Amino acid sequence: MNLAALGTSAGINVAVCVVVFSLYSILRKQPSQVTVYFGRRLSTDTRKSNKLCLDRFVPSASWIVKAWKTTEDELLTTGGLDSVVFMRIIVFSLRIFSIAAITCVFIVLPVNYRGKVLGHKRIPLETLEVFTILNVQEGSKWLWTHCLALYVITFSACVLLYVEYKRITKMRLAHINGSPLNPSHFTVVVRAIPWSPEESYGDSVRKFFMKYHESSYLSHQMVYRSGRVQKLMSNARKMCKILKDVSIEQKHKPGLYHCGFCGAHSDSFKILSHESESARGKSFLIDDGYGGKRKKVCAAAFVFFKTRYAAVVTSQVLHSSNPMQWVTQLAPEPHDVYWSNLWIPYGQLWIRKIATLVAAVAFMLVFLLPVTIVQGMTHADKLQKTIPFLEGPLKRKFISQLLTGYLPSVVLIVAFYTVPPIMMLISTLEGSISRSGRKKSACFKILYFTIWNVFVMNVFTGTVMDTVGIINKLDSVKDLPAQLASAIPAQAKFFMTYVLSSGWAGLACELMQLYPLLCNFIRRYIFRMKDWAIGTMSFPYHTEIPRLLLFGFIGFTCSIMVPLILPFLLVYFTLAYFIYRNQMINVYIRKYETGGHFWPLVHNTVIFSLVMMQIIALGVFGLRQSPVSSGFTIPLVIFTFLFNQYCRQRFLPVFKNHVAEILIDMDREDEKYGRTEEIHQQLHAAYCQSPSTSPDSSMAGSYHHQEEDSIQDPENVTPGKEVSQVSPSWSIASTFGAPEAI
Amino acid sequence: MNLAALGTSAGINVAVCVVVFSLYSILRKQPSQVTVYFGRRLSTDTRKSNKLCLDRFVPSASWIVKAWKTTEDELLTTGGLDSVVFMRIIVFSLRIFSIAAITCVFIVLPVNYRGKVLGHKRIPLETLEVFTILNVQEGSKWLWTHCLALYVITFSACVLLYVEYKRITKMRLAHINGSPLNPSHFTVVVRAIPWSPEESYGDSVRKFFMKYHESSYLSHQMVYRSGRVQKLMSNARKMCKILKDVSIEQKHKPGLYHCGFCGAHSDSFKILSHESESARGKSFLIDDGYGGKRKKVCAAAFVFFKTRYAAVVTSQVLHSSNPMQWVTQLAPEPHDVYWSNLWIPYGQLWIRKIATLVAAVAFMLVFLLPVTIVQGMTHADKLQKTIPFLEGPLKRKFISQLLTGYLPSVVLIVAFYTVPPIMMLISTLEGSISRSGRKKSACFKILYFTIWNVFVMNVFTGTVMDTVGIINKLDSVKDLPAQLASAIPAQAKFFMTYVLSSGWAGLACELMQLYPLLCNFIRRYIFRMKDWAIGTMSFPYHTEIPRLLLFGFIGFTCSIMVPLILPFLLVYFTLAYFIYRNQMINVYIRKYETGGHFWPLVHNTVIFSLVMMQIIALGVFGLRQSPVSSGFTIPLVIFTFLFNQYCRQRFLPVFKNHVAEILIDMDREDEKYGRTEEIHQQLHAAYCQSPSTSPDSSMAGSYHHQEEDSIQDPENVTPGKEVSQVSPSWSIASTFGAPEAI
Repeated sequence: MNLAALGTSAGINVAVCVVVFSLYSILRKQPSQVTVYFGRRLSTDTRKSNKLCLDRFVPSASWIVKAWKTTEDELLTTGGLDSVVFMRIIVFSLRIFSIAAITCVFIVLPVNYRGKVLGHKRIPLETLEVFTILNVQEGSKWLWTHCLALYVITFSACVLLYVEYKRITKMRLAHINGSPLNPSHFTVVVRAIPWSPEESYGDSVRKFFMKYHESSYLSHQMVYRSGRVQKLMSNARKMCKILKDVSIEQKHKPGLYHCGFCGAHSDSFKILSHESESARGKSFLIDDGYGGKRKKVCAAAFVFFKTRYAAVVTSQVLHSSNPMQWVTQLAPEPHDVYWSNLWIPYGQLWIRKIATLVAAVAFMLVFLLPVTIVQGMTHADKLQKTIPFLEGPLKRKFISQLLTGYLPSVVLIVAFYTVPPIMMLISTLEGSISRSGRKKSACFKILYFTIWNVFVMNVFTGTVMDTVGIINKLDSVKDLPAQLASAIPAQAKFFMTYVLSSGWAGLACELMQLYPLLCNFIRRYIFRMKDWAIGTMSFPYHTEIPRLLLFGFIGFTCSIMVPLILPFLLVYFTLAYFIYRNQMINVYIRKYETGGHFWPLVHNTVIFSLVMMQIIALGVFGLRQSPVSSGFTIPLVIFTFLFNQYCRQRFLPVFKNHVAEILIDMDREDEKYGRTEEIHQQLHAAYCQSPSTSPDSSMAGSYHHQEEDSIQDPENVTPGKEVSQVSPSWSIASTFGAPEAI
Repeated sequence: MNLAALGTSAGINVAVCVVVFSLYSILRKQPSQVTVYFGRRLSTDTRKSNKLCLDRFVPSASWIVKAWKTTEDELLTTGGLDSVVFMRIIVFSLRIFSIAAITCVFIVLPVNYRGKVLGHKRIPLETLEVFTILNVQEGSKWLWTHCLALYVITFSACVLLYVEYKRITKMRLAHINGSPLNPSHFTVVVRAIPWSPEESYGDSVRKFFMKYHESSYLSHQMVYRSGRVQKLMSNARKMCKILKDVSIEQKHKPGLYHCGFCGAHSDSFKILSHESESARGKSFLIDDGYGGKRKKVCAAAFVFFKTRYAAVVTSQVLHSSNPMQWVTQLAPEPHDVYWSNLWIPYGQLWIRKIATLVAAVAFMLVFLLPVTIVQGMTHADKLQKTIPFLEGPLKRKFISQLLTGYLPSVVLIVAFYTVPPIMMLISTLEGSISRSGRKKSACFKILYFTIWNVFVMNVFTGTVMDTVGIINKLDSVKDLPAQLASAIPAQAKFFMTYVLSSGWAGLACELMQLYPLLCNFIRRYIFRMKDWAIGTMSFPYHTEIPRLLLFGFIGFTCSIMVPLILPFLLVYFTLAYFIYRNQMINVYIRKYETGGHFWPLVHNTVIFSLVMMQIIALGVFGLRQSPVSSGFTIPLVIFTFLFNQYCRQRFLPVFKNHVAEILIDMDREDEKYGRTEEIHQQLHAAYCQSPSTSPDSSMAGSYHHQEEDSIQDPENVTPGKEVSQVSPSWSIASTFGAPEAI
């Protein structure tokens, strides 16, 4: 691939981006698309504007300006701490890659270009390899520039990482401090309640906590397992609700407290009163006790405590001399609870974790197939030999360039679309009791998956086109740095086109919201359904964070060897900054908070990228026979490792546990202002399973919570406060026009 | 090496053992050696018997009978839970290797012997290889017997391990439940107290705990760092005390409460009264505050709580939003505290841990040298080539046999004597604040060290005599099982002689207590000092547990390939059973308890041994081309792994944390029987540093604790209750004669 081909590729992508952005700026002004592009706004805002003017059909950059002007505080209130953390990843990447780009383009790139290994041609026909380290001859005196760049990048990255970690830790603490009404702070999930023939689970829980935590125990609420009939009924109820919402309730403005909303105004499925409900709860228990056929109550419960500190303490201590009984952990936020997994017996969890890990690894290896095929495409000559009938078309220059320059990445991207749902399924089976936990687990898996498949596998299958050979290659761990050092520059063009296609074009897709747009189109113009509620989505952190981190990883590992990639990456991160901000303000809603829990993962990945960069540099210096540079690189690896250890000590515990100091102070504040009673009252209503399996809470109310366990598209479920307000306000907005003026 | 040579070697060792045991049974009856062989008894018992009769000079087996008759309960009271756990390791090994010996000798050994790879000779001249798996030809139909043996050993080991783990967990809980007066249950060590210019550390601690843990906070006691003058003074005091003890205080029977003993009756170093002491404490603080030169108070303190539960809770929560401040952990037992390390700033710990780990690994690699030399000796022919002048002596058969059969192990053992002190030094620098923690850390390091050096290195250096080659060999991880499978049977003779020399002879040395015996001899007959106090030792778990586990490891890995080793191992464990019991009853004292903390390490090592056995078996079946057997072995590996995971879930948490249920029940018992006040009174006196750096406790008394930081022989220090009673009673006993009748 020469510079001209790279230009073609970049040109195509720039054109695509410009077209898409213009299209977006027009589409978003159309009233019919408001559900697609303003999901979040609609859920909170109902102002209207329906002027039919020329403005609606003229592309504009107003959305970019708006995204730029939004402050971090505004983002915090609309998108929550997680969205701010997400934006910090982008800001961090922008900063570090700006530094890297300046260093590498102005210092390293000239050294590479002036190397004498490869012959020079006219600039447009110059191959990309001329700009990589492949052009630097053995024992060159100028390798110290690479070492210097390594030092600059590593130290700036560490300083920036430290600053970010400190800042996010502070934000997390402020977030906890600023949410005094969060019921999850008072609640502990107890699992593996031992079964006794004499008493029900509920009685066991009450007895146990009354005995050992009398002073702080408030009440509890059992978890129920709904049978098939219940599931069918709740599905029917859901359908019914949606239909009624659309047809009848357009005039009603919803004003009830979150859970209480679902079905509250429909006649056929009225909420049962507290008394009758708790009576039903009892009858369930009796069924369970005598018949033993309808096993409703699970060995799990939510236990409420009087103070936050008591809840945290109880969640941390070891309760029973059998560590597999009375297992406690802090409860997730009400909307974050993944009810289906609360039914899983605690004793299964460890084996589920192992099994899902094995499944994820197996999936990772099976996925080698598409990657190999993709790599085949980047080497047209090899492909020609393997599949002879392609010889004709491949001789045409344009097709060949398209095939080698653009198509491989597209195939890879399409194949990658299957990964998040599968990883999410695996993470669901793992047994996390919170949606955020499941998402975080999926995020981990997808991250490792992408790094493994895009990076390692591409690097190695790229050089020799056989899958079996990889294993033999990975055998000699000692030679790995050298192999990487020689393989990565050779794969420069793949990484560049990957940044262009998967990066730039991927962002354009994200902005256009292709799938919801298509759904909306089909519903509107084919099925002619004008008022159809689309579930608003929460931000897909589990797919977007790995994507950003992968580009960061590619950036770090390539920076010294292929500096030409850095400007493209900078453009990517700049686009990402505006587009994701826009999406967070307009499209996605916040359903629950992890409280910045994604950051440690990000930190670790960046550290991993840095170490990989250094190891590959070691390989480079080894191949180029520059012992001095190698000698200077080793302390850098040690420094990075020590820095990581220090950060683990300094910041990580805050992400793993709640800080006692803060919780105690909050408890005292509550007491001081007499809020305690009020909070305790609200607690009982906070956690509620689906109405058909109402709580056996010792004091619980009977608010309801929509319970979803769809696996394939878990983010399209619509539980909770914000969602409950979506459909009516949406219909109002869509009737009255475009929300550009909102 | 043939059977005759093995016979010679075994014969020498049996003879040595018989002689040593006879000598021991005579020596222990001599009044002059009573300090060597009855250290523990002397410290608690003062009955006497000085009959000069013929019995004293006739060898007897009475000590074996006595060791056999001692019940586990008696052992528990004399040696504590740790000694029982240690004996359980031996019992477990005896059981599993009995099963393995029966299986392998009766099923596997005949199959090996009837193999046709090697030619047969007359039985005495038969080489050892004939009895190993080397004699089984490729594709043999009889390899299923090896697979069967593998199954039998793995499943019996798992069942036995489970039973032991359960039993020891129960014992641990009973031990905690049975020690209501243990001050460590009420005490938390706080480190990294933030420094403020306005107030002293002591005031900070008081303020912090009064603010956040008002209801449960009782008092605290600061930790002081003694300067050089203090150290000199305390050394002088120690010398003075010893001299006085011997010369004056023989008539005093010590009856004071532990710490209060040291120096209590001497005139020159009287205990200062409570008032003056606390005044001194204040003056220290002022010195610290104004001068800043004599930094006495450390940023660490012992904080006492009213209940056990409160202490456990406080030790577990995260106190500050800066996780590197106000770090808490449960305090070790008073005699277990390693005061010198309490002075280390908390911020250094993480880097110390990394540095010591690196140091340990470096030491491990440097130690390759003696191992290589040793291996050279087992191959006389190779040695002959390397060092030509040895050619003459090596031609004589006896010298050659001695050199190849016995000497290598002796050299190795001597070299190994340097390992425990060095590892102990490294573990001390690691910064553990308890002696038991330090010992456990050293135990870990010594274990990895021995397994690495004795096993892995011997196996690989044995086949090719170059050290550099090893690294290249370890490169291809995939071929490791096959390499091990071919190398281990070839090293059969080394392992056998190692069991004979290091195992049997090592036990004999342990029984004879060579070093104390020598010291005693020198003091008595050369310096003519009749009454010299030898510090009584606590049991060296950190050297003995790795030794046992190493033999277990060798047993497991060799069982299938070299079944002939199993009878020797069984003899070793039987001897160990009697000798260690005898030593625990008579020689060693208990200074502190870890509460069975060594067992998880043992469990993990056994699991590791099992997995190694299976992996090596995989290699064997691979080499012998038996895919069916290989296929049956893989599920076994998975099963072992899952079993380990289950045990981690089921038992490990009890060893890491205290159980809230039990502690709360104990607290209630105390309250019920009105013991609370009494316990609180005792708490203040429990933890006391050396008298020169007396506490700034808000309520503390002024008892003293002998503070030692000798590194090289850390177990010879004599702090605490039992030790304080040693010297006087010893002098009485040694005056009146042999304690055979005790």
